[in-house]
Amino acid sequence: MKLFDMTGAPNPRRVRVFLAEKGIDVEKVQIDIMGGENLQSNYLAINPRGVLPTVQLDDGSIIDETSAICRYFEETNPEPALYGQDAVSKAQIESWIRQIEGDAFAPTADVLRNSNPAFENRSIPGTDNTPQVPALADRGTDRVKAFYARLDNHLAGSDYVVGENYSAADITAMCAIDFAEYVGIAVPKALGNITKWRNRVSSRPSAQA
Amino acid sequence: MKLFDMTGAPNPRRVRVFLAEKGIDVEKVQIDIMGGENLQSNYLAINPRGVLPTVQLDDGSIIDETSAICRYFEETNPEPALYGQDAVSKAQIESWIRQIEGDAFAPTADVLRNSNPAFENRSIPGTDNTPQVPALADRGTDRVKAFYARLDNHLAGSDYVVGENYSAADITAMCAIDFAEYVGIAVPKALGNITKWRNRVSSRPSAQA
Repeated sequence: MKLFDMTGAPNPRRVRVFLAEKGIDVEKVQIDIMGGENLQSNYLAINPRGVLPTVQLDDGSIIDETSAICRYFEETNPEPALYGQDAVSKAQIESWIRQIEGDAFAPTADVLRNSNPAFENRSIPGTDNTPQVPALADRGTDRVKAFYARLDNHLAGSDYVVGENYSAADITAMCAIDFAEYVGIAVPKALGNITKWRNRVSSRPSAQA
Repeated sequence: MKLFDMTGAPNPRRVRVFLAEKGIDVEKVQIDIMGGENLQSNYLAINPRGVLPTVQLDDGSIIDETSAICRYFEETNPEPALYGQDAVSKAQIESWIRQIEGDAFAPTADVLRNSNPAFENRSIPGTDNTPQVPALADRGTDRVKAFYARLDNHLAGSDYVVGENYSAADITAMCAIDFAEYVGIAVPKALGNITKWRNRVSSRPSAQA
């Protein structure tokens, strides 16, 4: 099995942190997205969509999409459970992952991919040419800031994003916020609940994966 | 338990079809998104995010986000399994759901919400004012057409989106494509694999839910 990976990219990092929490070791192959290596024939022969992260199983078949890869490992290595332990916690973790992806990850990607010259005609990941839409950069920044305020409020009195256990929702939020800060959207210092939670999850060894 | 629902909206429909396949009956409450009822105080008291679909459990707590609601019912009513039966099929179904959402649902929503006057300052679902970005309408149409071509190719020789069983990936694709056609992005007649598959899934009684 191989994980096609890029050290600096946020979605591959979600998989690496998830694997570290599970104690799973997988061979990693670096692919340079910024340089467009994911759109060259060698990689497209593995994943014709040209997206990362991708897992290639020993039979040559692939699994792509971050959440699909993580859920694959949740099935093969159930402990520690990172997608919840009962119907309600599983649903709440899935809901928060979707909210973090939609309200933090996606608008941050909008900022990066619609303003950075490296992503000209690549405003959407993958093989199709999609021109940049500059208005999305400003809109994205505003949306991430609104999410920060909402998350800070949600985290009041809570150690983790959902319930009393660290979960895939924490991984998603940590990677999303680190990504947003990399893109220049800092967490306001006044949002102390985010800062406390972030110190908590970032001090786990898995955060270095 | 109550499902806050809107008959004509694509994401609530995904939940209704899912419930119909499971044979689960849930009380439904209609909320008019086009008229902004989801952003009025009565509904915000139930779900402060103002999004649909939302399930309210008997203890008053809520589950929102389509995939979280469906996964909740997959846990409480496992048969028939709609999210796969083993690690690989579960991962492939999740991957295809993400691809359909990202490459068909999201760009179709971009078209509708960035061109229809009913969504002025509501280009993103929820309570935040987000101005329309007209460029997203054209980009969205192009992206859905590209997805149609890719899905048609994928469906060659297959009865369902993943493997040999009807799954949540079929529900997602059916609702996404019906939504795209409603918005004016018709499936080209030349794409016979989509048409055959669509007739297959649309003839199930659940498609009328």
